Amino acid sequence: MNKIIEIINRNSTFLITTHITPEGDAIGSELALFLILKKLGKKAMILNSDTVPLIYRFLPHSEAIVVSNSLSGDYDVLFIVDCENLKRTGLKIEGAITEIAVIDHHITSKPFGDHSWIEPSASSTGEMIYELAVSVGVNIDTDIATNLYTCILTDTGSFRYSSTTPKALKIAGLLLEKGIDPWRVTEEVYESQSLNRIRLLGMALSKIEISDDGKIAWIVVTQDMYRDTATTAEDTENFANYPRAIRNVDVSIFFRELENGRFKISFRSKGHIDVSAVAQIFGGGGHHNAAGCVIEAGLNEVKRIVISAIKEVIRSVQ
Amino acid sequence: MNKIIEIINRNSTFLITTHITPEGDAIGSELALFLILKKLGKKAMILNSDTVPLIYRFLPHSEAIVVSNSLSGDYDVLFIVDCENLKRTGLKIEGAITEIAVIDHHITSKPFGDHSWIEPSASSTGEMIYELAVSVGVNIDTDIATNLYTCILTDTGSFRYSSTTPKALKIAGLLLEKGIDPWRVTEEVYESQSLNRIRLLGMALSKIEISDDGKIAWIVVTQDMYRDTATTAEDTENFANYPRAIRNVDVSIFFRELENGRFKISFRSKGHIDVSAVAQIFGGGGHHNAAGCVIEAGLNEVKRIVISAIKEVIRSVQ
Repeated sequence: MNKIIEIINRNSTFLITTHITPEGDAIGSELALFLILKKLGKKAMILNSDTVPLIYRFLPHSEAIVVSNSLSGDYDVLFIVDCENLKRTGLKIEGAITEIAVIDHHITSKPFGDHSWIEPSASSTGEMIYELAVSVGVNIDTDIATNLYTCILTDTGSFRYSSTTPKALKIAGLLLEKGIDPWRVTEEVYESQSLNRIRLLGMALSKIEISDDGKIAWIVVTQDMYRDTATTAEDTENFANYPRAIRNVDVSIFFRELENGRFKISFRSKGHIDVSAVAQIFGGGGHHNAAGCVIEAGLNEVKRIVISAIKEVIRSVQ
Repeated sequence: MNKIIEIINRNSTFLITTHITPEGDAIGSELALFLILKKLGKKAMILNSDTVPLIYRFLPHSEAIVVSNSLSGDYDVLFIVDCENLKRTGLKIEGAITEIAVIDHHITSKPFGDHSWIEPSASSTGEMIYELAVSVGVNIDTDIATNLYTCILTDTGSFRYSSTTPKALKIAGLLLEKGIDPWRVTEEVYESQSLNRIRLLGMALSKIEISDDGKIAWIVVTQDMYRDTATTAEDTENFANYPRAIRNVDVSIFFRELENGRFKISFRSKGHIDVSAVAQIFGGGGHHNAAGCVIEAGLNEVKRIVISAIKEVIRSVQ
């Protein structure tokens, strides 16, 4: 972190970005860093290639985020937050940038940029930005606190994942003291779904299936179901988590029909099985507990090969 | 709290109980208090009129809870936790009890027992038991910590409700330091549902309805749906929360068909509308954000009168 502070002190103009399809930790971290730089008298701008999802538009100053795929202005520093490299930002940088620094809590095998500050033990990138704010002596006001609280809340799955450390909870407590109403954040993040999404979820869950041994459960969304409920792929966020919520299920699968006879397959694990290994068999990837791939085949064939691959992995670890 | 400590110091044998249909805060508080009393060298027993729900059986020492409607033994003290009076425990006490003390975080208009320790600002009764453990100088081991952490987690809705205070988060952080894996608690509490419950939920959500103004959303579960999914009323816990998760919905309703042509109606509010006022119209009750009642009528008639009553309340506060 000291190197990041040194970079901040030494420079005047900062561009901040994050990964494509940004979620709570990405956007909250960008906004908090932006507000901290402003308080330090610096010139700062946030540039994302994707728009801010509806549920994160309540985040203070989110309207300041510029959405574009390319930028021609010049900046001293590019901060890439919650993201491992420039490629995953989806940006084309056409102007001059003097140095690039990465701030991320995800483990990476290939550090990127002139400097990378990676803290795999942090619950979220927001937790790192909190430490940064404290270290540079910036007063954490309600706006910064709301952004950082949302980072920690969302990246720990509402304080449910193993990443929920004592430190994450303590920082969340300190942030709440800055005048945040936790229920207001909940309302925006978790209680702002669309009616049609709920209908689609209901349709999928009513036909949930499970393997004979009860270890694998899955749901399916087809193009017909989108038509019947006036929904799109965007309405299926987190659908893969639902079958995992069944007792004794180790792995859940969400089969989502794309156009042109292909299926996007999302895997979730309770922790015993490494689903990234399964996704890799089909050319996909991800993490131990969340991974995905795309397969070109009919639904029955896709189900058959994916489920038998998972059974093979479960057998191999028993 | 000092009076409670004095009662503990002065006596030797303790009976602990809680309300009927106990949830996480009730059971976790009982178990933590039981373990604290044991550590202080006291004789203690937990007696509940209802069994421990499946999802709370992982709680350390939950197997020590005795389930019965009546008790004939003699005890110095009866502790009623997370519950306002003896009536709501569902117990018949036939033996001799010297004094009764209530420990609860719910506001009550009628304090009950020889002494009642009520802390409406506490996130949960578990938070109060934590303070008690610290005050009497008992070492909080992993077993006590797991029980208390589950109290705070579940009673704040996974740290989402307004009851999530800075203090609740800080105590949760301190409890985690005692060696709890938060994901293991999550797996037991939130990821241990039955397949049939998920099917029933899917069926109900696929037919979700909403009022013209988008302020009221509701789902229905009928006796036929129980039959089709091999479920019972127990499988519908928290169903009332789902329609509330829609953007701009103020009040959600869950209509659940009982036998003999009656409906149990559960209301949830995002905070703007007091649903206990609605429930009271129909002879029910509850809190500002969660209430319920029973109405004897056909489904269409029940829907009509309930929804128009809520519309009336919404109009009156606008």
